[in-house]
Amino acid sequence: MLDRFEIPRSHPRYWSLLLRERLVEAFEAGIVVPQGLIAHGRGEAFDYLLGEVSHGFALKAVEAAVAGLIYYKPRSVISVNGNMAALAPELLAELSEALEVPLEVNLFYRTEERVRRIEEHLRAHGARRVLGAGCRRTHLPGLESPRGIVCVEGIHSARFVLLGIEDGDRTEALKRAGKTVAAVDLNPFSRTAQTADITIVDELTRALKAALKAAERLSSAEPGELRGILDSYDNRAVLSSAFKAILDRLSHAVERGLILEPGPGRGDL
Amino acid sequence: MLDRFEIPRSHPRYWSLLLRERLVEAFEAGIVVPQGLIAHGRGEAFDYLLGEVSHGFALKAVEAAVAGLIYYKPRSVISVNGNMAALAPELLAELSEALEVPLEVNLFYRTEERVRRIEEHLRAHGARRVLGAGCRRTHLPGLESPRGIVCVEGIHSARFVLLGIEDGDRTEALKRAGKTVAAVDLNPFSRTAQTADITIVDELTRALKAALKAAERLSSAEPGELRGILDSYDNRAVLSSAFKAILDRLSHAVERGLILEPGPGRGDL
Repeated sequence: MLDRFEIPRSHPRYWSLLLRERLVEAFEAGIVVPQGLIAHGRGEAFDYLLGEVSHGFALKAVEAAVAGLIYYKPRSVISVNGNMAALAPELLAELSEALEVPLEVNLFYRTEERVRRIEEHLRAHGARRVLGAGCRRTHLPGLESPRGIVCVEGIHSARFVLLGIEDGDRTEALKRAGKTVAAVDLNPFSRTAQTADITIVDELTRALKAALKAAERLSSAEPGELRGILDSYDNRAVLSSAFKAILDRLSHAVERGLILEPGPGRGDL
Repeated sequence: MLDRFEIPRSHPRYWSLLLRERLVEAFEAGIVVPQGLIAHGRGEAFDYLLGEVSHGFALKAVEAAVAGLIYYKPRSVISVNGNMAALAPELLAELSEALEVPLEVNLFYRTEERVRRIEEHLRAHGARRVLGAGCRRTHLPGLESPRGIVCVEGIHSARFVLLGIEDGDRTEALKRAGKTVAAVDLNPFSRTAQTADITIVDELTRALKAALKAAERLSSAEPGELRGILDSYDNRAVLSSAFKAILDRLSHAVERGLILEPGPGRGDL
């Protein structure tokens, strides 16, 4: 038995600690693997450097990702791994329903049992379009181990994939397979962030909430408008803004030679 | 069953991935808690920003920490938690033996079972001076939950404590209890890093290897020399150098608008 960590709502980092506990619970339920917990910690550090808020560059990338999901339908898909399912099952379900785009359970540390659990977890939170244990399977070229397994009707045939908290190798394999990739990744220096066509440097739940707002705005848009958003999107500029945001915040802290200033309702790392 | 992640020695981040796997194994053995995996991920992110090398400021802090451990004997102790025991059992044992300073198993998520397992793990790696399950217990003032339990003959009566990867609350409680604290912490912005008297901004295994070298150099030093090292040590300057190292590395990456340059034998995050 672990001590259960009780988080008072007044705690300056309530939300961050809540997400952490949500992940630990999902881990105990067999949805998240130990490596997923470590990956979450890396994300926490970068989110802290970003000030734990959604920046303009993230919202711009979210808009492009949602435009892509709609524009490429029915050949678009949201790839869901254990961490994503643990952190935001209801938001993923809501986005999938709002856009009529399927969620595909796609795991780096794949076991069929975990695929089933994650599928159930998503369905229990309202998802209806889930490609999981029952899908027809194939491999992504160049990723022949279990971590290359994808659904024929999902990622395999998709032209546009939204993914999150993903491994660099897998993101690169999707790119080599000719797909347009949007990625949620808190670390703008990661291989996934650098490889994706659209990089959302933001925490997953904040990014998905922004995506739901964008979906509302764009779901009735003409294809021409969606195409326009995609054509004018500049990922190099977005990444460069993300670098700058981290650098500015650090410079500020270093100048004062002190602990990083917490944002409103935020505390120390 | 998880896929076991096989890491080729040629992998640019071999060492970092090896430590990660060591932690996951220790987790499966009941030595590390899920929250410890998340904490490790945060450390990985900061180590990446530091370039995964020991900087001069870290070596300076290591020297002061070792001087303190020797100078304050027999009232000095090395506090060991699950992550430390998982990452560096042999180095901790070696340092304890070299300095004749005890290791005290001291856990944030404390259960007596985990204390026992960690004690056994340390002893199995050669540690002989371990305060663990059998010690006489008391509480640190201001930390009345299980996370405040310490050994009477160890931390409770110590004047100098070396700890690592520690929670800010607990570091502050030690300071309030009048102890001099040296802390290994990869995040120079953390509360532990800011609260400690001596902050070693370095990865644990690298810091302990440096400590073993310092121990060799200082074990025959006169008390006057040790006192001199402690008196001339400036933690503010050390922290400020750590900030600057991270900032310089990020600035460089941002200027090039690219993925962070890996150090020799290192790759992307």
